[in-house]
Amino acid sequence: MSSRKLQVVSPVPADIDIANSVVPLHISEIANGLDLKPDHYDLYGKYKAKVLLPVIDELKDRQDGYYVVVGGITPTPLGEGKSTTTVGLCQALGAYLDKKVVTTLRQPSQGPTFGIKGGAAGGGYSQVIPMDEFNLHMTGDIHAITAANNLLAAAIDTRIFHENTQKDTALFNRLCPPNKEGVRTFNEIMFRRLKKLNITKTKPEDLTPEEVTKFARLDIDPDSITWRRVMDVNDRFLRKITVGQGPDEKGMVRETGFDISVASEIMAVLALTTSLSDMRERLGKMVIGNSKAGDPVTADDLGLGGALTVLMKDAINPTLMQTLEGTPVLVHAGPFANIAHGNSSIVADKIALKLVGPGGYVVTEAGFGSDIGTEKFMNIKCRYSGLKPQCAIIVATIRALKMHGGGPQVTAGRPLDRAYTSENVALVEAGCVNLVRHIENTKAYGVNVVVAVNKFATDTDAEVAAVKNASLAAGAFDAVLCTHHAHGGKGAVDLGIAVQKACENATQPLKFLYPLDISIKEKIEAIARSYGASGVEYSEQAEKQIEMYTKQGFSGLPICMAKTQYSFSDNASAKGAPTGFVLPIRDVRGSIGAGFIYPLVGTMSTMPGLPTRPCFYDIDVDTETGMVKGLS
Amino acid sequence: MSSRKLQVVSPVPADIDIANSVVPLHISEIANGLDLKPDHYDLYGKYKAKVLLPVIDELKDRQDGYYVVVGGITPTPLGEGKSTTTVGLCQALGAYLDKKVVTTLRQPSQGPTFGIKGGAAGGGYSQVIPMDEFNLHMTGDIHAITAANNLLAAAIDTRIFHENTQKDTALFNRLCPPNKEGVRTFNEIMFRRLKKLNITKTKPEDLTPEEVTKFARLDIDPDSITWRRVMDVNDRFLRKITVGQGPDEKGMVRETGFDISVASEIMAVLALTTSLSDMRERLGKMVIGNSKAGDPVTADDLGLGGALTVLMKDAINPTLMQTLEGTPVLVHAGPFANIAHGNSSIVADKIALKLVGPGGYVVTEAGFGSDIGTEKFMNIKCRYSGLKPQCAIIVATIRALKMHGGGPQVTAGRPLDRAYTSENVALVEAGCVNLVRHIENTKAYGVNVVVAVNKFATDTDAEVAAVKNASLAAGAFDAVLCTHHAHGGKGAVDLGIAVQKACENATQPLKFLYPLDISIKEKIEAIARSYGASGVEYSEQAEKQIEMYTKQGFSGLPICMAKTQYSFSDNASAKGAPTGFVLPIRDVRGSIGAGFIYPLVGTMSTMPGLPTRPCFYDIDVDTETGMVKGLS
Repeated sequence: MSSRKLQVVSPVPADIDIANSVVPLHISEIANGLDLKPDHYDLYGKYKAKVLLPVIDELKDRQDGYYVVVGGITPTPLGEGKSTTTVGLCQALGAYLDKKVVTTLRQPSQGPTFGIKGGAAGGGYSQVIPMDEFNLHMTGDIHAITAANNLLAAAIDTRIFHENTQKDTALFNRLCPPNKEGVRTFNEIMFRRLKKLNITKTKPEDLTPEEVTKFARLDIDPDSITWRRVMDVNDRFLRKITVGQGPDEKGMVRETGFDISVASEIMAVLALTTSLSDMRERLGKMVIGNSKAGDPVTADDLGLGGALTVLMKDAINPTLMQTLEGTPVLVHAGPFANIAHGNSSIVADKIALKLVGPGGYVVTEAGFGSDIGTEKFMNIKCRYSGLKPQCAIIVATIRALKMHGGGPQVTAGRPLDRAYTSENVALVEAGCVNLVRHIENTKAYGVNVVVAVNKFATDTDAEVAAVKNASLAAGAFDAVLCTHHAHGGKGAVDLGIAVQKACENATQPLKFLYPLDISIKEKIEAIARSYGASGVEYSEQAEKQIEMYTKQGFSGLPICMAKTQYSFSDNASAKGAPTGFVLPIRDVRGSIGAGFIYPLVGTMSTMPGLPTRPCFYDIDVDTETGMVKGLS
Repeated sequence: MSSRKLQVVSPVPADIDIANSVVPLHISEIANGLDLKPDHYDLYGKYKAKVLLPVIDELKDRQDGYYVVVGGITPTPLGEGKSTTTVGLCQALGAYLDKKVVTTLRQPSQGPTFGIKGGAAGGGYSQVIPMDEFNLHMTGDIHAITAANNLLAAAIDTRIFHENTQKDTALFNRLCPPNKEGVRTFNEIMFRRLKKLNITKTKPEDLTPEEVTKFARLDIDPDSITWRRVMDVNDRFLRKITVGQGPDEKGMVRETGFDISVASEIMAVLALTTSLSDMRERLGKMVIGNSKAGDPVTADDLGLGGALTVLMKDAINPTLMQTLEGTPVLVHAGPFANIAHGNSSIVADKIALKLVGPGGYVVTEAGFGSDIGTEKFMNIKCRYSGLKPQCAIIVATIRALKMHGGGPQVTAGRPLDRAYTSENVALVEAGCVNLVRHIENTKAYGVNVVVAVNKFATDTDAEVAAVKNASLAAGAFDAVLCTHHAHGGKGAVDLGIAVQKACENATQPLKFLYPLDISIKEKIEAIARSYGASGVEYSEQAEKQIEMYTKQGFSGLPICMAKTQYSFSDNASAKGAPTGFVLPIRDVRGSIGAGFIYPLVGTMSTMPGLPTRPCFYDIDVDTETGMVKGLS
């Protein structure tokens, strides 16, 4: 196993300076440390490699390592260092505790890198490197998703256009043109549609005129189209647009919009798929809208499931990178944590669990608080993967706990109130109600819960002790102070030891929050109860959609709640552990190919914007050295 | 030098079957054959590598090899096999004539791969492999262009939005926010704008209120914006759209549209740049429209030149691939051949010329007929590179010559008329007027012209002899029959020998068609005369634009005509060698960063559409083997 220890300095330099101060190991050294042979991976430059999926089959008889998920308490808008803790823990396990370890992380969206947020590689002495390659392009997976998503979008509008301008027979004849010998045939993908229509004939000329119409005319209802175009850029002017205004499009204008690429259902498919053939099926099953008769229209109906898979065939291989201390990281998929499930890919975790083997550790991060990330990790990701974590970490900060205890509002870009930088044990204790609910909810899955207190310079011993006491009282397996931001892996050694004990002492099976075979509403209500809600209220639109999905046969899918990450409830300003509220469901949508139904609790923005002075003002290349400057 | 000879079968199998029948060499073997060391390139999988730009500096003292450009006669809509000839010739030079050789080609657009056209890797036994990696994603260069282009587009609309919703001081304060010590500073890119405004002050607080306004308010005239968004997908419904219709965008709607990514000015920049620092400058100088006062607004004015360079920093390295016979290919850039100059990159050619060294050959393809591709190769690409070709090839087919001689219309997707499949020497002879003008125009640059007759099965000896005679009479250095489609490099050995002699006997300097220091109109007229035009007619809009660009100081740039490739004239149905027509210039636009002015001779489509049954119906992955099926 490759690894090395860092020399740290104090105060902690800027992230990019730390990242640039370390020369990464050649990625083949990292691969060697995992016993990967050269034909198990493809190099992408010197510091990235794609690990090829067949590795799973080759190692299928090896026992899995321990599986650890990192969640958090309800965060402030500043974030509580969940990625940093994930990376720091792995640096501790690999570089200080001599464990085989792989970190599995999401690929960040490139859009925000140039907007407000900056990069997402961790921070301080706990980072993934090279930071610029992690944040930009990486190995092209998001670009592949953009291309596939938009090919499907183009196919939808163009198909409607061609159906509107051609008679049934002309349409059919163009879809099944005669070959050189004058013989018409259905091709492979057409048999999928024929099967769906219960047509068992195999020759185009045998179809009745009614069957010709049913086969050739998808009859998409333009108002039902849920498939939007995507772009990995913060472009707010594309949120709502009208397309088709060119003279050649004959007045077939339509209102639609762009989402950021990570919000594409194809990203969710990539994250939840388990093999190449499974991905082929999921991509083909994606529903883009309904026919005028109310039947779901899929990518396969449009003839596209295969081509989409071709565009995604390299993206299915996770990307191997490294931490500052030379431990391996698999970066793969980055589905939105609100309209999708916000967890990195199943295939990366599966490969990682085999690579570390028994006694090794795979540590994966789940987005936002445990109500968002961990819940979906358990009920969606683990349900599809069949994997079971032994330990769940909950990252807490004194800052966020004070906010939950009643501290003043925390706003990004504004100075922190004094309440957050001077000792106030009472405020921390009051805020622990939030932490306690996260512990209880997470424990209910049958895992051992370890609380990681991510220490800031102004936190005091008494404040930290208050958190530890509350954690243990709530049933946490352990609660540990960490200083990995300032000290790298060395600052997370205690956390590493606690995680090791938690894994070795895990005995319970995974208990889901809800079974799949109850109704959509019952599933929504089970999740709402875990938030502290006393009930659920459905809009008329939500009722209509639930009825439709149930009728279409999709009620057996798991539920992916789209809810604010800033509160257990739908109200972002309700901090702590709110109870007695009624959770409003405004709409219900489906990612049928990815495999979940997503109720919308409020309005979710799926396309960020740029501020007056975006990050890009500071980003440049040193044209002498080729080094990137100004990335944060 | 790596290479190997092919075993060919007859009749020639499908392109994908030939491509899949050959196991490519590991790309490091190809690199070794060029004396590239592992630190000269980055691997992207097993069959692609990016050759790193510093190689140029390292080899700067080595003498260049011979430089050969492949153009063609005015083509039919079916194409006359120019890529195939380029690849076949290189297979001959490398595998049969023991020459060091590198082919330099454009990266194909992914959009058409799924639409009508299929791939662009050559054909028959003259192809670049692996074909799927060549046609899809490759090493992500086009995706990088899409991302950079669209970040700039988002920045334009968002800047207008922020300027419309903020007073000058607020805008200025947000652009130059105080740091932790409360001090405001300009950053590097802001000094570029200050310099442009002739403001020499270095501290934000020293600016007068007028200077604050001039600095902070770009005051972009929305009607003047020429920068469009791009996507590498055939999406006709994006040709004309309205953006900004979301409630948060406060009614700032605007009509705009998407082009296909290869039409982006950034693609033209990539093709014409000569170094990383040159690319940084060109990207910053790109003009996106005017201020309301009529001054050009650039990417650097928007704070983006550096960030765009960061997005493009890997794309500047050309991609090394291989032919079926194991000779090296550098694939790099793919600018549109109408609104841009349709030639692969300068940096790839420069690297290649050093790698092959004296006595070696670099063969590059220029888009369409010599009026489009070769003219721009000479007057734009060679002008910026300082390189000089020794030999220009003109690819001709009996089919296209018959069309020019008066044969019936040739339409893609329809069976060929009998005139094209049975002997008709008179028709060929009559059509040679087209070839003769291409020879004369090309010879005028001071290069030796070799005509390559790309043989089809139905061509007869008498027809081929007619072409050879006409070629030599028109001053061609040689005219040679080739059968590389059917026989690989072996079928282009005679062409290789002719090219070798042409290069060894080249003596003249490069003579441009026009100097740069004459007016825009004089340059347009010089090019029009080479087409056979008797004069040029300008629309009111064209007059206005020429006046504007001249006033803005851009009249010294070369000219890139946007004209149909199907005739020397503006009328696609005027075959042969038309004369006496007046060339209409409907509009004139500028790619200021890339470095040319482009007059529009007619309407150019910059976003293709999908047919009723696109190629994607046949494309799929074999999920057992991971192999791509159905790509053509």
